[in-house]
Amino acid sequence: MGNSLVAFSKEHKELLEEHLKASVQTLNAPQIIKDSMLYSLEAGGKRIRPLLLFATLKAFGENTQKGLFTASAIEMLHTYSLIHDDLPSMDNDDLRRGMPTNHKVFGDAFAILAGDALLTYSFQLVTHTPSDLATAETKVKLIEELAKAAGAEGMVGGQVADINGEGKKLTIEELEYIHIHKTGKLLVFSVVAGAILANANHEKMELLASFANHLGLAFQIRDDILDLEGSEEKIGKRVGSDETNQKSTYPSLLTMEGAKLALNTQITKAKQALKETGLDTELLEEITDLVASRDH
Amino acid sequence: MGNSLVAFSKEHKELLEEHLKASVQTLNAPQIIKDSMLYSLEAGGKRIRPLLLFATLKAFGENTQKGLFTASAIEMLHTYSLIHDDLPSMDNDDLRRGMPTNHKVFGDAFAILAGDALLTYSFQLVTHTPSDLATAETKVKLIEELAKAAGAEGMVGGQVADINGEGKKLTIEELEYIHIHKTGKLLVFSVVAGAILANANHEKMELLASFANHLGLAFQIRDDILDLEGSEEKIGKRVGSDETNQKSTYPSLLTMEGAKLALNTQITKAKQALKETGLDTELLEEITDLVASRDH
Repeated sequence: MGNSLVAFSKEHKELLEEHLKASVQTLNAPQIIKDSMLYSLEAGGKRIRPLLLFATLKAFGENTQKGLFTASAIEMLHTYSLIHDDLPSMDNDDLRRGMPTNHKVFGDAFAILAGDALLTYSFQLVTHTPSDLATAETKVKLIEELAKAAGAEGMVGGQVADINGEGKKLTIEELEYIHIHKTGKLLVFSVVAGAILANANHEKMELLASFANHLGLAFQIRDDILDLEGSEEKIGKRVGSDETNQKSTYPSLLTMEGAKLALNTQITKAKQALKETGLDTELLEEITDLVASRDH
Repeated sequence: MGNSLVAFSKEHKELLEEHLKASVQTLNAPQIIKDSMLYSLEAGGKRIRPLLLFATLKAFGENTQKGLFTASAIEMLHTYSLIHDDLPSMDNDDLRRGMPTNHKVFGDAFAILAGDALLTYSFQLVTHTPSDLATAETKVKLIEELAKAAGAEGMVGGQVADINGEGKKLTIEELEYIHIHKTGKLLVFSVVAGAILANANHEKMELLASFANHLGLAFQIRDDILDLEGSEEKIGKRVGSDETNQKSTYPSLLTMEGAKLALNTQITKAKQALKETGLDTELLEEITDLVASRDH
C-alpha cells in the first residue's frame, strides 16, 4: 500500500467505523437487535466500498465528509447481504472472517431481522446527509441507484443466479453474470455515489462505472485464486472450499494461468478507464493495485 | 361498506394491483425471483395500507395519482414483512390467506431473497414518482419516514419484541409496544405519506398520525377478537390459534368484554382525531367503521 493510501485509509476507516457504531447505538430499538446489527458491522472487513467512495470524492477534489452517510449506508447494506448469505437456508456458513456468523450467535430469526434492519437503515442514512453537503435531488439519485444496485436487478439477482448455479458447471458468461451482480453492482455504486455527490458529468460517471466494474471482476478473480493458493490463516476460511463445494470459479473454467491472465486484463482495463477520466485518481489506482495483489 | 368507499376502493385496488404487477414484470432479473415476488404480492389481502394513503390524499382534495408509487412501495414492504415473518425460523407458518406461504412454494432461500428484493424495491419505487407529482424534497421525506416506520425503530423492532415475548404473559403495555411497532408504524406511515404528498402542515400531520395510530390498535384488537370468535373460512386460519400458541392477546389480558371496550375506545379516538383535522374525511371514517366491524 502506498503511503498516501495508508494514511487516507486509516483516517477514513476510523471515521466510518465511529459513524456506523454511533448510528446504531442511537437507535430507539430493542437492545438485542442493536447488538446483532453491531456484531456484524464490527466484525471488521476491509471496508473497501466506503474507501472507494471516499477516494472517488478525493479524485474530484471534494470534501470526503460529503460521503460519510452514504458510505455508512453502503457498508450496512453490504453487511446485511453477508448476514443473509450465511444463513443455513442460503450458504450455511458457520464462520465469517474467522468469527462465528451472525445466526450462530443470535439465532436465525434475529439474524434475518438484523439484516432487514440494516438494509432498511441504509436508505434512511442517505436521507440524513446534512443538506449543506447534498441536495434533495442528489439524495434521491443516490437512493435510486443504491436500490437498483442492491435489488432484484443487482445484488439479489446475483445471489439468485449463484444459488441456481450450485453444483452445475457454469459458462464463463454465467459466472460473470453472478459476479457482476452479486458483488460488482455495489462496488460500482460505491464509486458512482462519489461521482453523484461530486455532480460529475455523464462521461466521467460512465468511465468511473466502467473502472469499478473491471475492479469488481478483478476482485472476484483474485478471490477465486486465493481460495486455491491463499493462506488459510490470512483468508479466514479453509483453502480449497470452492473445489469441495463444486463451485465454478475462474481457475476451474480458465485454468490457473488463464485466471491470472484474466485478472491482469481486468486490472489494465480498470486503470485505463481511470486515466481517461482526467481526474486526480492516485488513490483509486493504489486501491486497484491492492486488489490485484491482496493476499486476504 | 358505504357506497362511496366501495367504488373508491375497487378503482384504486385495481390501479394498485396493475402497478404492482407491472413494476415487478419489467424488472431485468432472474424469472424465479420475479415469480416469488409476484406470488406473494398477488396473494390478495385487503390492501388497507394503500387504501389509507389514497383516502388521505382524497381528504386533502388531492389527485390520488400522486400516491401510486408510494402506495405500491408500502404494499411491497408489507408483503416482504409477511414473507419473512412466515419463515420456519420466525413464525413458521405454512398458510397465509388460505394459500401456501412463499417459502413452502419457492423454498426458504428464495423466500428470504424475494423479501429482500421487495424491501429494496419499495425505496426505489418512491424515487420513481413522476417529478410533476412530487418534489425531490417530498421524496426524501417519504423515504426517511418509510425507513423509520419499517426498520429497527419500527416494524422490525416490533417483530423482535414479539419474538422475545413468545410464551410469556405480557403486560398490556408490552402488548401495545408490539402492535404499535409491528403493524402500527406502517399503517401510520400510510396516512402520513398522504399528508406529506399533500404538503400538510405540522398540526394536520400530527392529527392524522394520531388517527392512524388508534386505527392500528383497533385493527389489532379486532384481529385478536376474530381469532377467538371469527369464522375459520373467512379469516383463513384456525380459530383459537393464538390460545394454542400461548400468545398474549387483548382478550387474554383484558377479557373478551374488556377487549371489545378497548376496541370501541380506539375507534372513538380515531374518529375524534379525524374530525379535528377539519378535512373531508368521509372515506377515512368509512375505513374506520370497516376495521371496527370486519369479520376477516
